[in-house]
Amino acid sequence: MTAALAGWIDGVRGDTLPADDRGLHYGDGLFETIGVRAGIARFLEAHLARLASGCARLGIRFDSMAELRAEIATAVGLAPAGALLKIIVTRGSAVRRGYPPQGTESARRMLSLWSDDGLPTSIAEGVALHRATSTLADNPALAGIKHLSRIENVMAAVEARAAGAFDSLLLDGSGHLISGAMSNVFLVHDSRVLTPRVDRCGVAGVMRGVVLRECASLGITATDGRVTLDALLSADEVFITNVRLGVVPVSRVGEHSFRMTDIARRLAAHIETLDA
Amino acid sequence: MTAALAGWIDGVRGDTLPADDRGLHYGDGLFETIGVRAGIARFLEAHLARLASGCARLGIRFDSMAELRAEIATAVGLAPAGALLKIIVTRGSAVRRGYPPQGTESARRMLSLWSDDGLPTSIAEGVALHRATSTLADNPALAGIKHLSRIENVMAAVEARAAGAFDSLLLDGSGHLISGAMSNVFLVHDSRVLTPRVDRCGVAGVMRGVVLRECASLGITATDGRVTLDALLSADEVFITNVRLGVVPVSRVGEHSFRMTDIARRLAAHIETLDA
Repeated sequence: MTAALAGWIDGVRGDTLPADDRGLHYGDGLFETIGVRAGIARFLEAHLARLASGCARLGIRFDSMAELRAEIATAVGLAPAGALLKIIVTRGSAVRRGYPPQGTESARRMLSLWSDDGLPTSIAEGVALHRATSTLADNPALAGIKHLSRIENVMAAVEARAAGAFDSLLLDGSGHLISGAMSNVFLVHDSRVLTPRVDRCGVAGVMRGVVLRECASLGITATDGRVTLDALLSADEVFITNVRLGVVPVSRVGEHSFRMTDIARRLAAHIETLDA
Repeated sequence: MTAALAGWIDGVRGDTLPADDRGLHYGDGLFETIGVRAGIARFLEAHLARLASGCARLGIRFDSMAELRAEIATAVGLAPAGALLKIIVTRGSAVRRGYPPQGTESARRMLSLWSDDGLPTSIAEGVALHRATSTLADNPALAGIKHLSRIENVMAAVEARAAGAFDSLLLDGSGHLISGAMSNVFLVHDSRVLTPRVDRCGVAGVMRGVVLRECASLGITATDGRVTLDALLSADEVFITNVRLGVVPVSRVGEHSFRMTDIARRLAAHIETLDA
């Protein structure tokens, strides 16, 4: 997985975009990373729903959903057995220089197809997480959506790597656990599953939504709520999720180890069979 | 001011960039907006010093400062009487998909030249500010630098516009005043000038640095420190700064009015005469 296999800008095959795009200048846009397996864009409706919701939240008028669906179908048709399809929608080229949009920008959509070599099998045995030194800001207007302003995630991922960890865990300014840098996080207490709310910061991951939904179908009680660091450290089991990883158990956070019970593995095996 | 007059990507005239640039994908880069007046890039050394410092903080290896200086000279030579020169430096094209950089990316530099029609003269009479509903996250690793992940600033600027205000004021999660969405903020108490520290969040504006320096040359005591919202509302005078605005007095924040004393006007007139 080194470079994109193919790219489309507003429906045209290509791999360059105008340098005045507000996505570049201000992180003013949204993205989705979609797993593609055996010719199917997995959980596509959840991705497109989140994208539409993000556009509404940012005030980006995106009226090309039908065209985007057609382009996704084209890209999936070209995909190798395991691939990732990344969609970016930005507010488009700047109409004027400066932060405030003018309201007359024309949204731009970009697709890129990437091969996915798969995950190391060792992660099924559990991964180590690092507690990030930085915190996430309360911002209900931006919470949940997958906008392009991700330097916090980049730096938290750099920290994880430097610490020899698989991902970083991020808290908010009040000490509540929110998510990983590239994942959502779940706790198990007495066989009940809990994940942090993402109504003040964090991203509402598509796989997070799938896990909450599929817990119900497996007879597992699952909710979201405020989660303290103490609750994390007293959990019976911890796991992280994203669309590429699926469900991955956490073996430790910093120096604290977790036992490996079976809820993460049951969920991982079940969700691996699903495409929607 | 509607579209860039000219652009350069890694030294070549052009206005497109590779779609796999990490500046677009993750806001993983930095920018500077430089005022150009009568053939001079104003406060250039301060801009380049901040850019270099930002690259070091993000771990972006930028070894093209000499080329960048030459390109700035070329752009300034093409500039109309009043112009803005925007520089973007990103970590470059993704070597692998995903947040963590691989360390082998090659930084990309982009210049664009914009005409500047100047400011409405009415702002010298004072501008109104809106208190943003969102807060800024504590993140010492990112504080002060001008990175590309600016969706918070975009949304705070949208809020200001919706409130009929010139800019928004942003606080941190602990209720300390930090900055405007597109400006730094200063308070005057008993003829002493105070601006919020930007060591935990916010941007260390080039004009902010110029004001702190020039206060000394005008015999005005000026410091940075922690600033509460109460301190703001009890100030004798408030003003905001950025390189395009210079120094602009604030007439009100929400419903609270400030009297117009003379420190902002003295600073504005003095700094208007400076280019470095």
